[in-house]
Amino acid sequence: MSWLKILGAVIVGALLLTVGILLGHFAIPKGGNGSGAPSWVQTVGRDLNESLLQSFMDQVESEKIRENLKALASQPHMATTKGDEELVKLLLRRWQDPQIGLDSTSEDVYGAFLSFPDPQRPNSVAVGVPGGGIKIFTTRRSEKNVTADQAHADVVQPYAAYAPPGNPRGRLIYANQGKRSDYQELFNMGINLNGTIAITRYGGTGRADKAVNGAEFGVAGVVVYTDPADINDRRASEEETYPNSWYMPPSGVERGSYNGYFGDLLTPYYPAKEFTYRIKESEIQGIPPIPTQPIGFEDAQTLICDVQVNVHNQRVIKNSSNVMGFIRGSEEPDRYVLYGNHRDSWVHGAIDPSSGTAVMLEITRVLGKMLKEGKWRPRRSIIFGSWGAEEFGLIGSTEYTEEFYSKLRERSVAYINVDISVFGERPFVLPALLRSCCTIPISAFTAGDGKLCSPPRDVSHSRPSPLPGPESLTPLHPPYSLGSLGAGSDYASFIHYLGITSMDIAYTYDRNKTSARIYPAYHTAFDTFDYADRFIDPGFTSHQAVARTAGNVLLRLADSLVLPLNVSDYGEKLDELYSAAAQGDFLDKLNANNLSLGTDPLKAAIDRFKSVAADFNQRITKLKKEESPSPLQIRMVNDQIMLLERAFLNPQAFPNKYYYSHVIWASKSSDQATFPGLADAYTNALETGDWDQVRKHLTIVVQAVESAASTLEAVA
Amino acid sequence: MSWLKILGAVIVGALLLTVGILLGHFAIPKGGNGSGAPSWVQTVGRDLNESLLQSFMDQVESEKIRENLKALASQPHMATTKGDEELVKLLLRRWQDPQIGLDSTSEDVYGAFLSFPDPQRPNSVAVGVPGGGIKIFTTRRSEKNVTADQAHADVVQPYAAYAPPGNPRGRLIYANQGKRSDYQELFNMGINLNGTIAITRYGGTGRADKAVNGAEFGVAGVVVYTDPADINDRRASEEETYPNSWYMPPSGVERGSYNGYFGDLLTPYYPAKEFTYRIKESEIQGIPPIPTQPIGFEDAQTLICDVQVNVHNQRVIKNSSNVMGFIRGSEEPDRYVLYGNHRDSWVHGAIDPSSGTAVMLEITRVLGKMLKEGKWRPRRSIIFGSWGAEEFGLIGSTEYTEEFYSKLRERSVAYINVDISVFGERPFVLPALLRSCCTIPISAFTAGDGKLCSPPRDVSHSRPSPLPGPESLTPLHPPYSLGSLGAGSDYASFIHYLGITSMDIAYTYDRNKTSARIYPAYHTAFDTFDYADRFIDPGFTSHQAVARTAGNVLLRLADSLVLPLNVSDYGEKLDELYSAAAQGDFLDKLNANNLSLGTDPLKAAIDRFKSVAADFNQRITKLKKEESPSPLQIRMVNDQIMLLERAFLNPQAFPNKYYYSHVIWASKSSDQATFPGLADAYTNALETGDWDQVRKHLTIVVQAVESAASTLEAVA
Repeated sequence: MSWLKILGAVIVGALLLTVGILLGHFAIPKGGNGSGAPSWVQTVGRDLNESLLQSFMDQVESEKIRENLKALASQPHMATTKGDEELVKLLLRRWQDPQIGLDSTSEDVYGAFLSFPDPQRPNSVAVGVPGGGIKIFTTRRSEKNVTADQAHADVVQPYAAYAPPGNPRGRLIYANQGKRSDYQELFNMGINLNGTIAITRYGGTGRADKAVNGAEFGVAGVVVYTDPADINDRRASEEETYPNSWYMPPSGVERGSYNGYFGDLLTPYYPAKEFTYRIKESEIQGIPPIPTQPIGFEDAQTLICDVQVNVHNQRVIKNSSNVMGFIRGSEEPDRYVLYGNHRDSWVHGAIDPSSGTAVMLEITRVLGKMLKEGKWRPRRSIIFGSWGAEEFGLIGSTEYTEEFYSKLRERSVAYINVDISVFGERPFVLPALLRSCCTIPISAFTAGDGKLCSPPRDVSHSRPSPLPGPESLTPLHPPYSLGSLGAGSDYASFIHYLGITSMDIAYTYDRNKTSARIYPAYHTAFDTFDYADRFIDPGFTSHQAVARTAGNVLLRLADSLVLPLNVSDYGEKLDELYSAAAQGDFLDKLNANNLSLGTDPLKAAIDRFKSVAADFNQRITKLKKEESPSPLQIRMVNDQIMLLERAFLNPQAFPNKYYYSHVIWASKSSDQATFPGLADAYTNALETGDWDQVRKHLTIVVQAVESAASTLEAVA
Repeated sequence: MSWLKILGAVIVGALLLTVGILLGHFAIPKGGNGSGAPSWVQTVGRDLNESLLQSFMDQVESEKIRENLKALASQPHMATTKGDEELVKLLLRRWQDPQIGLDSTSEDVYGAFLSFPDPQRPNSVAVGVPGGGIKIFTTRRSEKNVTADQAHADVVQPYAAYAPPGNPRGRLIYANQGKRSDYQELFNMGINLNGTIAITRYGGTGRADKAVNGAEFGVAGVVVYTDPADINDRRASEEETYPNSWYMPPSGVERGSYNGYFGDLLTPYYPAKEFTYRIKESEIQGIPPIPTQPIGFEDAQTLICDVQVNVHNQRVIKNSSNVMGFIRGSEEPDRYVLYGNHRDSWVHGAIDPSSGTAVMLEITRVLGKMLKEGKWRPRRSIIFGSWGAEEFGLIGSTEYTEEFYSKLRERSVAYINVDISVFGERPFVLPALLRSCCTIPISAFTAGDGKLCSPPRDVSHSRPSPLPGPESLTPLHPPYSLGSLGAGSDYASFIHYLGITSMDIAYTYDRNKTSARIYPAYHTAFDTFDYADRFIDPGFTSHQAVARTAGNVLLRLADSLVLPLNVSDYGEKLDELYSAAAQGDFLDKLNANNLSLGTDPLKAAIDRFKSVAADFNQRITKLKKEESPSPLQIRMVNDQIMLLERAFLNPQAFPNKYYYSHVIWASKSSDQATFPGLADAYTNALETGDWDQVRKHLTIVVQAVESAASTLEAVA
């Protein structure tokens, strides 16, 4: 052979060898057996797929939401009634659908303690001659039917749920909002409240408080009406109101649960199951001790002098269902992202709650479709809840958290609530995100046309919101202040009892545009599909924006490799609460009572928290830059984020307030803008001189903040 | 070219290509960049290294433990005294040693509320003539010095910690063990207890109870003595006792904390830090309301008729330290295996607690050496704790759990306690493992000679143990019943307050061989190195066996890929507790009070638990067979095991018992052998007729068992 041939052979041989090596190395995947990498190595570190998220957003249809709402609000569906039972079936049908359903569903039943009017003996407020027996006037049995949508045999008459039956008669006294201070003022004026009937307007304090406070002053019965100034921007005539506008007609009456706590009243801390011990009715706290009845402003105008309140409510234990839907997580099935809304209404409940359920069903339709088509499975498990008997006091969601306390506390990443998803028509509304902890990094609500609008603004229902509405395209930038979640919807037990990061998403009313306490048809017979379709969200683009936003948040929480919650936000909130105590009168009083010692460890604890949170964020940034971080490293920081909220829980902090154990977000009576326990103890000490309780609540806060800092600290 | 040449070339070419493919696929490792496997893939699934464990066992030396004990017990080291401070330094020195130290250490200081006698005015019990003033006799100030080991200026005089000062004088009444029933019996006999001094013997009830109960009957002061029948197998003469045997000399006095609860008394639920609010002394519950003083049986024999109890104890807040040592986990640093013992004694404390600390130091020596030599790093983090002020009421460990409540609750796999490691000499002792949950699969205690002896037997201190001692080589087989942890040592707050699986390891006394209530020198000045070296464990082989066993358990918990805890054990325990309620009088009374409904859901819940636990074990078995299971899968089942114990917690279950919240292991007063809350409610109902509380506790148990089953259920 010539050297040329030899050279050629060698070159060909070398080429073949090289091709072989390259093929062997790159083209043939290593097996899962021994030396090679197991299959989970690829999936375990997968992050959120942004294009999949975009595809979700694109598929959310306003028309579908409208159809959902029409179906959901087609008849009254008060908790445990026939209408409610039919919605249970509707939800199960949707979530079990082979094309758009979820992995699995369940129906969880609780024996809820409820209260209903007697259909045979309607409640009323009747006017008589003082001392005499002639009925001059009796309030109407229910709202006037102003649209066909509204008419239905099952419309429940207006009543105050849990108010006891009785027929007290007495002199009518106007007691403003029925606050303690309102009755006190009357008392100070020398008015004898004993045996009177107090007429109070909605607002200012909880529904039940109006009767609880009144009874303390000897009041025999309470009438509650809706003032046109509080709900209708002062419009009161028939022609100014629905069906001609969104304002409440004169005959409208706000129903409601007259229940100061939440959860099933007979089974605090335990699920209302068959085996569960029930306390005595006489042991229930926070419900009206005297007959109480809500009326409309039309009737309120007519009431004079001597009236009789006739209440025939009956209390009963009835089975109420939660409908649950599940999507199993691929990598971390033992981490839950929860999404829920209640199902029950007072009457047709188009806005409250069906506007939220319509949105939820659209989200599950699109996700279910992606799931069934094999295009998507979330990293973490997703649990959808359609809660029962919320209107009676958040019963379904609370019983759920009681039954699965340990599991939920250990595994839940966050709870997303969308109850009333749109409170009014543009320009009356603003995008709002109430939340307990930590910014979700979505830069904007997404409007119906798919364009980005103003960002979600964290506001509380009771605070004016100076931000532009969704019609504006100007992006606004963080930081936003944290919005405060009260106990107004089903997030209450998640945040207050379990310490699970919670948020509530909606278009809420713009206080610059209306002074309505809430949307005017709230809890009345006028809250119908027609009302929603014509006055709340014609075209359903606001609903669509809420669905996209809530779905966006949900997907980010379920799919992001590192949980998208910024822990540093809590530092700002702590600073804000601290500042309120460390200045002015508050500080002076502390100093005067040798409590200056108390504020320094608090400052130190907050500073430690902020510094630890900043370090934590740096570690996250570094971790995200690593090409392939260890799944247990990722899990560790995610657990730190998830459990941060739990560190603020203290079951001993508020021994007299059922469920409240979150040191930052618990309810308070004081108007001091600092930590709730501290604020209440301070206000109480001003009256009683009990500064020891202030000292105790300082300890509680310091300990909670230190504990939160420990949670975020570098482990080991 | 001939076809032969062509064939040859093709073959050579194919061979080269094949070699290349093989080389490329197998010989060249895939890089960490993109397509290849990251480095953590190898380490993340690593299991316990058995040969490393064996190496640990081999390195545990009895002589080292003996040296440790000699150093630890060289002088009295009561909490916060000079001797205690020097041991803090000793521990820090050992754990910071470059050759045998741990990764890091810390000294955590708490301001503990303690009680000491006044060195200037010794407590005493003095005998006088009834009505007169002459002191006929005064009890001795402290024990007689019978060995050189024992003599030290810092020996604290016998006293009842937390008993108030005072000098009550009155007629002496023998009140047996000072139980409520003992005083009641005297009262029923027509004896007027008002203004009397009660003399009671140790045992039968908690120390503080003797005074708390007496005060209810008008008793003015309490004297507590040790009966030779209870501690010395009836031996009472000087020559039968130490230094001639392990029995307590006549002058011996058991000191102790007269404190019915645990943790710092002024700061329940909060760490006793500078910032912490302290309740008023008058608000403390469970400590003697009247002067109380312990004495020896020599003095007890002499007391007659009219006596005066002189107590000059002073209460004070003093800084007490926990010394903490850490070893960082390699794969799961955010999972903690805790190991601890208290450091403080009453006098020299050779057995209580130094026999445990000597063992802990030997374990940390060997582990520290392996660590510093780079031979080992645990999968999970290990935290060692040398607790302060245990003798005053488990203060150091409790404050630790209060300060780091959230973090420990979320991350702790288990707590191992070795306090008194050997209670007596063979054949007086038996290996004992008290634990809350779940068998550790070590088949035996390992004796000093390295041979396997009888397995650890789960016993409670108060139950006879019919098993052979470590001298036997007969292996015994599971199942063992679960031993019940009370609140006798530092595991109390871990198990009762945080719900962390806990265990206590020791050689305990064999009830067939001695009737001693505890080893006779317990809490006396005779508990010295000499006593330990001659009468408890000559040669220190029992200590060595405890060190090997505890270290074995520790390593298995820290290094095993799947946590070595068998969840099915709880099923047996639940069956046992259920059976006690579902038969005989108990069941009859339930039925008679319409509570039959209550037992069925309980049975159903227990059956569900057992079935879910069996399924869980099957899943574990399957998972272990997988060649390379996903690290997140492993983490998921480990979290289920770890958090099972937490599911039995209910902070509302025992509102009047500080810290107790574990539905299975809480303390009880009733002698019914069922669930503690149920047992107490039942016993109370027999007296008061309050069957509602029984109903409530049935709910509490059902809910806890259901919750535990939910925790183990297949996720999603």
